[in-house]
Amino acid sequence: MTVTAPAGFEAAGIAAGIKRTGALDLALIVNRGPSQQAAAVFTSNRAQANPIIWSRQAIADGQVAAIVLNSGGANCFTGPEGFQVTHRTAEAAASALEVSAGDVLVCSTGLIGDQLDGEILEEGVLSAANRLSADAAAGEDAARAIMTTDTKPKTVLVEGAGWRIGGIAKGAGMLAPGLATMLVVITTDAELEASALDRALRQATRVSFDRLDSDGCMSTNDQVTILASGASGVVPDEAAFTEALTAACLDLAAQLQADAEGASHDITIEVRGAQTEDDAVEVGRSVARNNLFKAAIFGNDPNWGRVLAAIGTTRAPFDPYLVDVSMNGVRVCHAGRPDRPRDEVDLAPRATHVLVELHAGEASATILTNDLTHDYVHENSAYAS
Amino acid sequence: MTVTAPAGFEAAGIAAGIKRTGALDLALIVNRGPSQQAAAVFTSNRAQANPIIWSRQAIADGQVAAIVLNSGGANCFTGPEGFQVTHRTAEAAASALEVSAGDVLVCSTGLIGDQLDGEILEEGVLSAANRLSADAAAGEDAARAIMTTDTKPKTVLVEGAGWRIGGIAKGAGMLAPGLATMLVVITTDAELEASALDRALRQATRVSFDRLDSDGCMSTNDQVTILASGASGVVPDEAAFTEALTAACLDLAAQLQADAEGASHDITIEVRGAQTEDDAVEVGRSVARNNLFKAAIFGNDPNWGRVLAAIGTTRAPFDPYLVDVSMNGVRVCHAGRPDRPRDEVDLAPRATHVLVELHAGEASATILTNDLTHDYVHENSAYAS
Repeated sequence: MTVTAPAGFEAAGIAAGIKRTGALDLALIVNRGPSQQAAAVFTSNRAQANPIIWSRQAIADGQVAAIVLNSGGANCFTGPEGFQVTHRTAEAAASALEVSAGDVLVCSTGLIGDQLDGEILEEGVLSAANRLSADAAAGEDAARAIMTTDTKPKTVLVEGAGWRIGGIAKGAGMLAPGLATMLVVITTDAELEASALDRALRQATRVSFDRLDSDGCMSTNDQVTILASGASGVVPDEAAFTEALTAACLDLAAQLQADAEGASHDITIEVRGAQTEDDAVEVGRSVARNNLFKAAIFGNDPNWGRVLAAIGTTRAPFDPYLVDVSMNGVRVCHAGRPDRPRDEVDLAPRATHVLVELHAGEASATILTNDLTHDYVHENSAYAS
Repeated sequence: MTVTAPAGFEAAGIAAGIKRTGALDLALIVNRGPSQQAAAVFTSNRAQANPIIWSRQAIADGQVAAIVLNSGGANCFTGPEGFQVTHRTAEAAASALEVSAGDVLVCSTGLIGDQLDGEILEEGVLSAANRLSADAAAGEDAARAIMTTDTKPKTVLVEGAGWRIGGIAKGAGMLAPGLATMLVVITTDAELEASALDRALRQATRVSFDRLDSDGCMSTNDQVTILASGASGVVPDEAAFTEALTAACLDLAAQLQADAEGASHDITIEVRGAQTEDDAVEVGRSVARNNLFKAAIFGNDPNWGRVLAAIGTTRAPFDPYLVDVSMNGVRVCHAGRPDRPRDEVDLAPRATHVLVELHAGEASATILTNDLTHDYVHENSAYAS
């Protein structure tokens, strides 16, 4: 069910001692080939962590043999020493696996501004390299080792025609577009060139992770990586592969949403009738980022006025006085006026559906978000301590 | 200390019965002249309440005799009936005061989507017209009548050379730029044409209310109005008047910040070293809208990494790895790296100062915001009930 499900991959997840709690905190995922093609998308935040700076360079040639991921520290804004730690991590993996350091990616997640201990990382990588396995349990350990405030590991498996896609993900806060504090590793035994992987990954993330906007905050460390071993010997139809990869990414995105910090509602904001898909995304995102709307949903209050106040701030072409808003199937606003009574809406279930019909065109988009809760405030006011 | 302090103005604040609690809910402010020049700025939200639609038209000629303000209902997204209620309110005031309805502005605040009762409004206006007074107490009543979740009235008085500026304001949530759920009425007995009032008001609000960004949410009902009676007989120097008006607006903005819903910290975000003032505003606003940063301040956690993660999402030209961040006078980040220990920062006081030095130019700007607290979530999840 994880990165070890496709043929050609081994993984390990260990407790290297980065987290003071003794929990699993370091994952190593290795592509044993025969092919080592790869692609990745990175945070669009200009404040980029050291592992992002490293990985961007390392993947430039489309060739990746292994990826090291640690929780317990973001290694961001830690200066040249921090970059040295990332470099040392890659070198340690390269040495243990007998590959080039330039073929090793590094991902880190945790608090910004704390220095990681290079020796602990190095020893952890060597220890993980000794425990590499293609077993399902090894992939599960890797999924657990990248967790921060996640309450459960996120994994996925999609079966293709003779090939598989497996994946793991972490991310429970700072989930926002242009990716979001999420680390995702996807593996496949399909045979694909790096350029095809890159196209498929960009298409898949555009409609999945990029549309998960839990709290509007964009991370410094986000990275979604796909590694292809070619071990199945099957060259897939690119459209079919992209579809399967999109399904895998949507599945993981839904798992991230379901485990978002402190959330009590998983909110699906569906925007229809926009002139363009970009307009629909902008409208959906304006709702997803409106604290007043999000607090209302927490309070089981179908406050559609806050939806209209939010979408009125966008530049998308539509007439606010033609808009319909439905919540969990009840149309509470029709043509910019009250429609069905608010008390017909049942917001008790965790799954919440908000439909915004703009009546301005034919385009649509769906944004996933969460409510704003006491627990969100609590978790994020206490994270550093 | 309020709108009745300048000569030429009368006011009243009464309980018309709009609020079920029996609290004051309707204010009437009348300019007795000799001059009745006026200017206003309105929410930039495209979803605009009926009183906004009305007032924009009524003030187009720069002539305003009176303004009616109600709390207890926003009269937004209430369809043609809602617009009729606004119109009837203006007509009632016009009839009682023997002026043209086209010289009467209307402002409303409260829940979106609830229909106001036109009869209650009409009777309230007539009752208020019978209680008009130039006394200080009448202005205080008007300040109280526009309160929603405000815990205290906001008032200001600035003395000029032979003229005065007085003001009242309400607003405790949805405080965001392009104005924000705030209603502000400012009066002056200085002698100024509408065009000069408009210039002064735009300049004053640009650096005051427009830089108060409590929760990133923009309202449908915001309106800041200035009325000039000319009763002092003094034509002020325009620069001096603009300066005094800016001071009045900054004072009211600070009062709005201090009373923001559920806040436990008043956060001043000072951005220095930007290439342009717009860049500085964009950078400051990105911090002010970052829920993770705001939750950290609530937890007295000087989490500067969240400041850098926030500003990295802007388009402002600067190098994240040259940025300094200080909190309450302690530089916790220097050149994108940890500087003084976090525990040297004392975030216990309500007043919180965050200094972001970009080292990219000479421009600066200051944004006011609040922390994200349990009480904010509570108040905004329970508002409709």
